[in-house]
Amino acid sequence: MTARYVGIAAELRDAIMRGEYAVGAQLPSEAELATRFAASRGTVRQAVAVLATEGLVGSRQGARRIVLGRERSQSFAELHSFAQWARAMGYRVSGRVLEQRRRGAGATEAARLALQPGEPVLSVLRLRSLEGEPVLLERTVYAGWIAPAVERLDPGCESVTQALYEGVGLVFAYGEHLIDAVAAGVEDSRLLAVRRGSPLLRQRRVTTTHEGRPVEWSDDRYRAGSVTFSIRNSVDANPLVRQVGDLRSAP
Amino acid sequence: MTARYVGIAAELRDAIMRGEYAVGAQLPSEAELATRFAASRGTVRQAVAVLATEGLVGSRQGARRIVLGRERSQSFAELHSFAQWARAMGYRVSGRVLEQRRRGAGATEAARLALQPGEPVLSVLRLRSLEGEPVLLERTVYAGWIAPAVERLDPGCESVTQALYEGVGLVFAYGEHLIDAVAAGVEDSRLLAVRRGSPLLRQRRVTTTHEGRPVEWSDDRYRAGSVTFSIRNSVDANPLVRQVGDLRSAP
Repeated sequence: MTARYVGIAAELRDAIMRGEYAVGAQLPSEAELATRFAASRGTVRQAVAVLATEGLVGSRQGARRIVLGRERSQSFAELHSFAQWARAMGYRVSGRVLEQRRRGAGATEAARLALQPGEPVLSVLRLRSLEGEPVLLERTVYAGWIAPAVERLDPGCESVTQALYEGVGLVFAYGEHLIDAVAAGVEDSRLLAVRRGSPLLRQRRVTTTHEGRPVEWSDDRYRAGSVTFSIRNSVDANPLVRQVGDLRSAP
Repeated sequence: MTARYVGIAAELRDAIMRGEYAVGAQLPSEAELATRFAASRGTVRQAVAVLATEGLVGSRQGARRIVLGRERSQSFAELHSFAQWARAMGYRVSGRVLEQRRRGAGATEAARLALQPGEPVLSVLRLRSLEGEPVLLERTVYAGWIAPAVERLDPGCESVTQALYEGVGLVFAYGEHLIDAVAAGVEDSRLLAVRRGSPLLRQRRVTTTHEGRPVEWSDDRYRAGSVTFSIRNSVDANPLVRQVGDLRSAP
């Protein structure tokens, strides 16, 4: 059974997306939400915390939280695949393999996958849609050892991450992501239905197993406006005080 | 004095940027680097760990690390200002205030800064350069309570974060970031010297004090190709196994 707070989070998210709670307005209090959903305040608190992680509502200001936005935002607090994220948010998601072939690793691919150049990899071009619209073009290179399991997948497989977990017990444990903006190339513009040169959000990533073994190196390009990444951080890992000292005394 | 490992990290970074260590090549071992820099292996290890955080070298493969790339990448593990990051990387950085004025907060600004719409804020347009090239346009709205301190800053102030810390003891403690790609508008293209409609990496962020009090809400736009953000995450915060269970049983 889906946890109750997940369902409540989904209902609140929909209400925010529909504009029922405007940007800048306050969410009802925990007590009010608990009554409305016939749930405990603890459950409501969990649901609201999910929305806070997604950047839809702000930190507590007194008893209530403020609605911050209505964007589809993908949190980087945890490693999620696109399909996992989209499903958890309640979006209809689909995927389609357009090309798939084995070849030798290029220099960058080999470096990212901890292989020697020329070692066999599986190259896959996959188009992902959200709510029926093409939004994401994935150019993924899989290390040779996982290639047979990827080749066995249905070309319309919705969540590769889930299918590989169910099929061969593979867990994508760690991700390293490089994020920038690029201009749509010829293939990008054709497949994502955008003009050539228009902005795309690019996420390049290496995903590894728990043991640190690289599984895939991917160049993922999102149509501008389709998805926003959200990230939280703090100064605590490296206190500003020390930094300022370092900077002041730098030669 | 700048810590020794910071200097060694800077020298290794320069060597990677110059192509002395090619992408895919191995870094020398810790022992070799320790000899070369006349430093302890512990110090060398710290220096190499900095490069790993920046995504320039990979995780350990046996005794050595692989060179992964030659990009300027800004890590999200910690909250750093642009100037702090650039200086720590050894880049020449400069900033210039182009416009600055007090006005009332709009609806989104008020929501992000936990103010009422119309409450006074300070709006600042700032252009940042890296190695003499304009790369970042910041449109920042400061909460009224910090506005006087910001207005006292030099318009060519290099690090606003550091100046506010030194001037009034303000610590930017937490950041919430929204990252996407946008097309350059008229003002963007003029100030960043790019074509209108060309891709920009956008980072919108709220920065708060340790107590969670919002200080600023900013829309920062980077010229494509100038900076890449790097982020690491893991599945551990929310194990995949539970997720798959949730997804399977979702209605």
